Amino acid sequence: MSVCLWVCLFSFWVNDPPFGLIIHGGAGTIERHKMSADLDAEYRRALKTALAAGYEILQKGGSCEAAAIATIKSMEDSPLFNAGRGAVFTNNGKNEFDASIMLGTGEAGACAGVRNIKNPILLAQAVMNSTPHVMLAGDGAVAYARELGLEFETDSYFFTEKRWKQLKKAKVKEKEQSHDNKWRKFGTVGVVALDKQGHMAAATSTGGLTNKQFGRIGDSPIIGAGTYCDNETCGVSGTGQGEFFMRSVVAYDVAALIKYKGMRLQEAVDEAIRKLSDKKGSGGLIAMNTKAEIAFSMNTKGMYRGYRISDGRHVVQIYGDEH
Amino acid sequence: MSVCLWVCLFSFWVNDPPFGLIIHGGAGTIERHKMSADLDAEYRRALKTALAAGYEILQKGGSCEAAAIATIKSMEDSPLFNAGRGAVFTNNGKNEFDASIMLGTGEAGACAGVRNIKNPILLAQAVMNSTPHVMLAGDGAVAYARELGLEFETDSYFFTEKRWKQLKKAKVKEKEQSHDNKWRKFGTVGVVALDKQGHMAAATSTGGLTNKQFGRIGDSPIIGAGTYCDNETCGVSGTGQGEFFMRSVVAYDVAALIKYKGMRLQEAVDEAIRKLSDKKGSGGLIAMNTKAEIAFSMNTKGMYRGYRISDGRHVVQIYGDEH
Repeated sequence: MSVCLWVCLFSFWVNDPPFGLIIHGGAGTIERHKMSADLDAEYRRALKTALAAGYEILQKGGSCEAAAIATIKSMEDSPLFNAGRGAVFTNNGKNEFDASIMLGTGEAGACAGVRNIKNPILLAQAVMNSTPHVMLAGDGAVAYARELGLEFETDSYFFTEKRWKQLKKAKVKEKEQSHDNKWRKFGTVGVVALDKQGHMAAATSTGGLTNKQFGRIGDSPIIGAGTYCDNETCGVSGTGQGEFFMRSVVAYDVAALIKYKGMRLQEAVDEAIRKLSDKKGSGGLIAMNTKAEIAFSMNTKGMYRGYRISDGRHVVQIYGDEH
Repeated sequence: MSVCLWVCLFSFWVNDPPFGLIIHGGAGTIERHKMSADLDAEYRRALKTALAAGYEILQKGGSCEAAAIATIKSMEDSPLFNAGRGAVFTNNGKNEFDASIMLGTGEAGACAGVRNIKNPILLAQAVMNSTPHVMLAGDGAVAYARELGLEFETDSYFFTEKRWKQLKKAKVKEKEQSHDNKWRKFGTVGVVALDKQGHMAAATSTGGLTNKQFGRIGDSPIIGAGTYCDNETCGVSGTGQGEFFMRSVVAYDVAALIKYKGMRLQEAVDEAIRKLSDKKGSGGLIAMNTKAEIAFSMNTKGMYRGYRISDGRHVVQIYGDEH
């Protein structure tokens, strides 16, 4: 091999540090035999589209923040995921969103209990970049979004037949005082992105729980519970039964296990899910570090997920048995 | 010494495990030379009253939960602290409360952005005990409080001259676009209580930031940020610049330093405050474990604080130089 080629390869290695992203589109009782071939393909397509949205930005040298936002926006715009357009319905037939973003350098922003905002993740980003605060909620947060000129949509934009049926079913189950919580549909979308500059961003967005009442806030907008990011340890996004993630401060726990116990990324993510199982909680986690190592873990039957890394790894998966 | 006396002492030791509580009433630029003797005495009296409210319950064998609630309620009912009655004013001249409670066994409840509720901590407790959720916010949370029959108060109940003046001053500073954030009055009340059964509860309540806008939520209602409790490690309540506590997941970090790094209680609390200082954040922490060890730390000039333990330790302090 000529010296020139070696120099070339060396320069490639020096100039092109690894970059990429990992995403999830919610975890739950997602089973192969209950999914039509068409729907299966549709979900995989949507996951690939979301990965591409972020990857293209990273490839061009864009920031992890821009990539994370573009990825979440893509999933919020899809009617398939419980975030933005595809959000579940609250008890009074409305859609209510929570979202958060955190950078590996420590900045963070979140919004909770907001309505009619097309892309709640853009509001979380604005809270991070343009206010001294970390979290804005409810009417105040919506007023701030209007002041910023963010895009709003009418209720009909957020209407999907599937979610409406889930609400009707949930109300029947509620009347029956069912202790089976499976009708409480939840779901989330999340991302961790690593850019060429070696910085990370993690973000999460959700429509919460079907039939939720009384302004319930879950883990997705909570830094430490549903989202956490630190360039020294890892970026994390969670999905599942939010209350369990909040009580166990799951996303930060993954970072603490790495930082204080010296665990590897996959080990830490597995340990956090093991502890979640011990407490009878269910859900999944994705994580990534600045070495472009990725990890995911879940104790549910499936989790919509995928990753695309500059070294060529490019995968989308749905069921628990896909490796 | 007679055998009888030894038996007596042994039975005292067996039957009376340690119990007690530690509290704070906010940290900040509290300086001796700016405080009148009367006001100093008034604060110390209020801290003693709050300690007594919880201690009496613990002494009679009551639960840490009941003691924590009674203690916070006492401080929420005082016009001196930024919680309940003495809350600061929002930008539009209202009072808006956040509160949370967590038990050492893992249950947790919180409310955020609620108005006119006399004792926000009672709503947080109800969220923990009577809903499947951890956090309710805004109008939904207020509707739930009405359904529960919690006590409401008119705006005039929450009016204090001092807080009104702080709002007016804050608005002037805002117009001047002052970068001096000292006018942004904050403050919190918090408690960690240990009962005779060896269980702990931690709770925090606040009126947030003077002149706050857009439904800003701070660290006080966030499990992991402003409040955390676990019988295996410690209970923690924080007070200070909430956004810094949220981004660093401070309350859970104290527990993680003990659990994963083997730090002692005081060491962990000091380390969390050192990290807060590194990030230019300011505030204070109180913590306690099931051995009735207590710890506090702050990087502010003062923190209203106190503790009362069954072994006779009974202290209230205000300034940073009191030990």
